[in-house]
Parts: sequence; structure tokens; C-alpha cells
Amino acid sequence: MRLPRHIERSSRTLTSVWCAIVAWIVVASILCGSTAAWAQSDPLPSWNEGVAKRAIIEFVTAVTRDGSPDFVAAPERVATFDNDGTLWIEQPIYVQFAFALDRVKALAPLHPEWKDKQPFKAVLEGDMATIAAAGEHGAAEIVAATHAGVSPEEFRQTVKDWLATAKHPRYNRRYDELVYQPMLEVLAYMRANGFKTFIASGGGIEFIRVFAEERYGIPPEQVVGSSIVTKFERRDGRPTLFRLPQVNFVDDGPGKPVGIEQHIGRRPIAAFGNSDGDLETLQWTTMAGGRRLGVVIHHTDAEREYAYDRQSKVGHLDEALEAAALDRWTLVDMKRDWKTIFASRQ
Amino acid sequence: MRLPRHIERSSRTLTSVWCAIVAWIVVASILCGSTAAWAQSDPLPSWNEGVAKRAIIEFVTAVTRDGSPDFVAAPERVATFDNDGTLWIEQPIYVQFAFALDRVKALAPLHPEWKDKQPFKAVLEGDMATIAAAGEHGAAEIVAATHAGVSPEEFRQTVKDWLATAKHPRYNRRYDELVYQPMLEVLAYMRANGFKTFIASGGGIEFIRVFAEERYGIPPEQVVGSSIVTKFERRDGRPTLFRLPQVNFVDDGPGKPVGIEQHIGRRPIAAFGNSDGDLETLQWTTMAGGRRLGVVIHHTDAEREYAYDRQSKVGHLDEALEAAALDRWTLVDMKRDWKTIFASRQ
Repeated sequence: MRLPRHIERSSRTLTSVWCAIVAWIVVASILCGSTAAWAQSDPLPSWNEGVAKRAIIEFVTAVTRDGSPDFVAAPERVATFDNDGTLWIEQPIYVQFAFALDRVKALAPLHPEWKDKQPFKAVLEGDMATIAAAGEHGAAEIVAATHAGVSPEEFRQTVKDWLATAKHPRYNRRYDELVYQPMLEVLAYMRANGFKTFIASGGGIEFIRVFAEERYGIPPEQVVGSSIVTKFERRDGRPTLFRLPQVNFVDDGPGKPVGIEQHIGRRPIAAFGNSDGDLETLQWTTMAGGRRLGVVIHHTDAEREYAYDRQSKVGHLDEALEAAALDRWTLVDMKRDWKTIFASRQ
Repeated sequence: MRLPRHIERSSRTLTSVWCAIVAWIVVASILCGSTAAWAQSDPLPSWNEGVAKRAIIEFVTAVTRDGSPDFVAAPERVATFDNDGTLWIEQPIYVQFAFALDRVKALAPLHPEWKDKQPFKAVLEGDMATIAAAGEHGAAEIVAATHAGVSPEEFRQTVKDWLATAKHPRYNRRYDELVYQPMLEVLAYMRANGFKTFIASGGGIEFIRVFAEERYGIPPEQVVGSSIVTKFERRDGRPTLFRLPQVNFVDDGPGKPVGIEQHIGRRPIAAFGNSDGDLETLQWTTMAGGRRLGVVIHHTDAEREYAYDRQSKVGHLDEALEAAALDRWTLVDMKRDWKTIFASRQ
């Protein structure tokens, strides 16, 4: 059939228009599709492209891909994460220390003698220099006064109540909002690849358990940390646990691999830390033979967070910074590697 | 339409036959269906019907059914199981003690002095009375000689090798074949209902970890037990853990709730035990308010296994037997309640 010319032309035009539309749809959907696929395939969207991000992804791929020479069976995929300075903020003072200082103030009315007794006097007067000068002994007294004398349940409730109201002095945000978004992505990514993620912290195990499940997706039984002695007692016939003012275990430095072994019973194949307190754990993890991942978070971003290492008392990073180069651990430069620092609260 | 009578009759007959067949199929499929459903719905096939089986199923149903007044959220569904005498055999001597005695014999060529030194002399001569008379001090010496001086990895390998060859004197079967089939069903049933299952044992944590994952489906990090001190060391530059001949923690009696709290960070809602070493754990678990389950396995079957309680040194059950009645714990009578005792090895 031959159409009149004007109709034929308009038909051809129509066909072209349709073709163009269809072509656009096809191209657009390919583009969209691949963008979507790309977005889906990027497990660490808050990380800038670079050595650190690549090292994490390559490691996870290598130990999980079927047929990989570095394949590790799922039950052996244990990853440990330090908490302070690795998963959440630790400056200007450790969060748990801020809790202890606030607790001294809250408990002061019950202890009138603290007005004249160090280190409590210094805490009540906000005299940080004197608190620091009181050293380990002073810290132990503060911990005893604020962490013991209650059941674990009561202690956890106190921490929970405190976290709900206390604010970080610089950001004026709840402390548990100051967790690192890029690290939440690492936790989720590793779990999605069959890893079990554990906290291995020098901080108090019962303190961390209060927020670890909600904020990190890490249940209480996967938290390894320092502890004070707990005792079983019958009180008015009721069986109770009671926290004593006595150190039970220090899960820091050479104690950390011991705590991990005791608690997990498997040597990690990946360890994340940010200070010299993680040195032995990083060595023990990565020097076992086989493909391993050691990661050191280096706080380099004074503008968005804090910049500190060798000179800092909190999160002191010196030996582990040297070792990172020697032992080929992945050094994360927060300023360079992280697009975002803190997670927005869901 | 009216059919001729003979056709009408045969048609009616045919209809009846068809009806009968259809009816049979319907009835049969209802019967088969319900049998299948029943078989599927019995999560504890090795348990005889009775109070004990019913108590376990009713508890699990009550805490897991949506809308139940006793509903417990999945993360809080923590169940602890004693090991010796609760999940596997503990007579005539604790399996770990049998391991220690065998290790003394295996190590004797390296220790010629043991021929004249107690309690080793008694072990080498099979003189059980003298070993028993050596008491706690003697036991500590045996543990030190057989459990320390190696890394956790080396120790686990030694246990693994021993388990592969050692045989129970009465059954002439591997010890890890003498796990209780009805308890494996309880473990699987509870896990299928969102419980996390933990071992809480007076036995050595590293010893149990060797077989708990394969035999019970309980991974190393869900084993709570007694331990000796472990130390971090650098040996020829290699970071290592090293087991010292020194008790770290005794996870028995009043120590068991402490170990559970330390390790799990949650109070169990169900606890299974079989001896006075589980008394405090059963009390602490069941006296917390809310629907709770306490179970005491009573060894009553001398024919298929062993019958013992108040008079036995191994698995001594006296106070917890009294308390079971007072505190309404579920008493399992092995002879009456268990169809099968041991699990066949897959």
C-alpha cells in the first residue's frame, strides 16, 4: 500500500519519534540499570575510592569467593573491631570516662566527703589537670565509685539513661550518634559476607553492651572488653550478681588477644583498631599465615573530627603506626578516605 | 432426559463407586496429611510423651508465639546447657579427666620422674583410689601437666586427636558419640524457635570447643567454661598465646552465673543442668520473673546409661534435686522420658 506523501512523511516522522523515544528508554534503562547495579555493588558508599577501600573489598572478596586460593570457610570468618576511636568517637576524653565523671557528680549528694577527697574533689570542680595527675590509682577510685556496687542489670540501666541525655561537648549530640558511618558500612558488608563481627575493646564490656546491638548490630555476647569482678550472691533469698570494685580483666594491649581467645575461641582473620592498644591484636591476627587483614584508623581530620596520634594520651598511636607500614596493614586516613564521618541516627 | 432403567442403574452404581473412591481419597489424604503434619510438628521425637516433654514444648510455645502474654523477643531468647551429664556422658569419670589421665601416660616418656612422683605414679599405675585421695591439689597438678605449656591451637589439636581414638570403657565408642539424642533435639528445636544456645560448663572451655560445633551445633564463641590463665608472648618475633599452669576461672556453682553474665551479657530464660553445679544457674535463671524454664536431667537409667544422684562424686545431684521440686523446675527422668539415649553419628 502506498500512502499519500504527506501522510507517508508524517508517518515516517512518527516512526522516527517513536524510535527515538524507544531508543532513549532503552539507553536510559541501561544507564539507570547499570547505575543502580553500581550503587548496589558498592558496599562502602561513604568511603572514597583509594587504597584503603580497595584493600578491604579485595580482602573480603578473596576470602569469600568460591574457588579463591585464599578462601576461608564461613565459621572461621571472625573479624574484631576496637570500639573507642575505631567505631565511635574517643576525643576529647573516652566516652566511658565522661560517663564516670557525670556519675561522680550525680552521686555526690550521697557522698558529702567527696568535696574534700581527691580525685572526687577535682571531678566535682571540673579540674581535669588534677584528675589526670591522680593517674591510674585515681582512675581506679573513680571506676570503683561509679561502676561497682550494683548488679549488671542496674549498671546497664544507668548507662542507658546516661546515653539518652548526655551530649558531646563539641557536637552537642548524643554520644551514640557519634559512631562512624564508614565503619557501620564495613560491619554490615562483612556480615553480609558471612563474617561474625566482634568488638574487642579496652573499654568496659558491660558499658559497650548497652548500645552495641542497636548501633552496631553486635549482640552482647559478641562484645569482648575489660571487666571488674562480679560475684554471685543470695540477697533476701534472691540470686543476684553484684559488681565489685576490683579489676577482673584488662582487655587492652597484650590482654586483647587473650580476651579474644578466651571469648571467641578462634583467631580473627581481620582486625580493626586505631591505637597502640590494638598492636598485639593486629600482630596476632595478621601474622598467623594465610590471607589476613589488619586495619589502622588514623585520625587525621581536625576539621570534621580530630587529628591525633603519637602525642595523644587518648587513642595514643605510635608503635602501631610504625608497624602498619612494616606489616602491610591498611592505614585509613580519615580525612582522605571517609566521605562522611558520623552516622545519621535512624 | 430419562435414561433406560438398566443404564440409569449402572450409572447410579458408577456414581456410587466414584463417590466411594473420592471419599476414600479425601479421607486418606486427610489422614496422611495429619499424620505428616503430626510427624513434622513433633520436634522432640526421642522423648516419650509426658510432663517433661510437655513442659519444654509449652515453654517454647509460650515465649515465641505472637500475642502470647509470655512472649520474649528473639534476642532475649538465651538458653544455657551444662555439658557433662546434660549433653553427653560423664560416667564413670568426666571425659576431660579421662583425657588428662591418657595425656599423663602419653607424656610419661618425657617425664621419667613421674614413675616415683604422685599423683603421676598413681595415674601410670591406674591406681584410681590414690588419684582420688590426692584431691584438688593432685587434680591441679594433673591439669597443669596436661593442659598447659602449649598454645590454645596446639591444645585443641591434642584434644581433637585424642577424641578421634579414645574409647569409652563401657560402650567401646568414641566419647563424642555418647552425646544425648534427646538433648540434640532440644538444642535444634530451641534454635529453630529463635533461641541462641550456649554451653555453660564446669569443664574446660577450650576442651569443649573442640567438639561443640560439630556435635551440638554450638560455635566456640557460645561456649562458657572454666579456664586456665593464657598469656600473650612474642616467641622468635611471632605473637603467640601460651597456656599457663594456673587457674583463671572456675565456671561451676556460683561461678556459673558469673561466667554466663561475663560471656553472654544476658540472663538466660532457660537453663538445663544435671548436678548441684547447676543450682545457682537454675535459680538465677528461673527466679528473675517472667516465664522461665529450668530443667534438671536425672540419671535414672542404669541399664542404658547410669543411675546416680546424691551419692555420686561425678555429677553429684542433691540440693538441685530438692530445689527442682520447690522451684518447679522440670525433672527429666532419663529412663522414663527418653526413648533413645545416645545419638547415632551422622
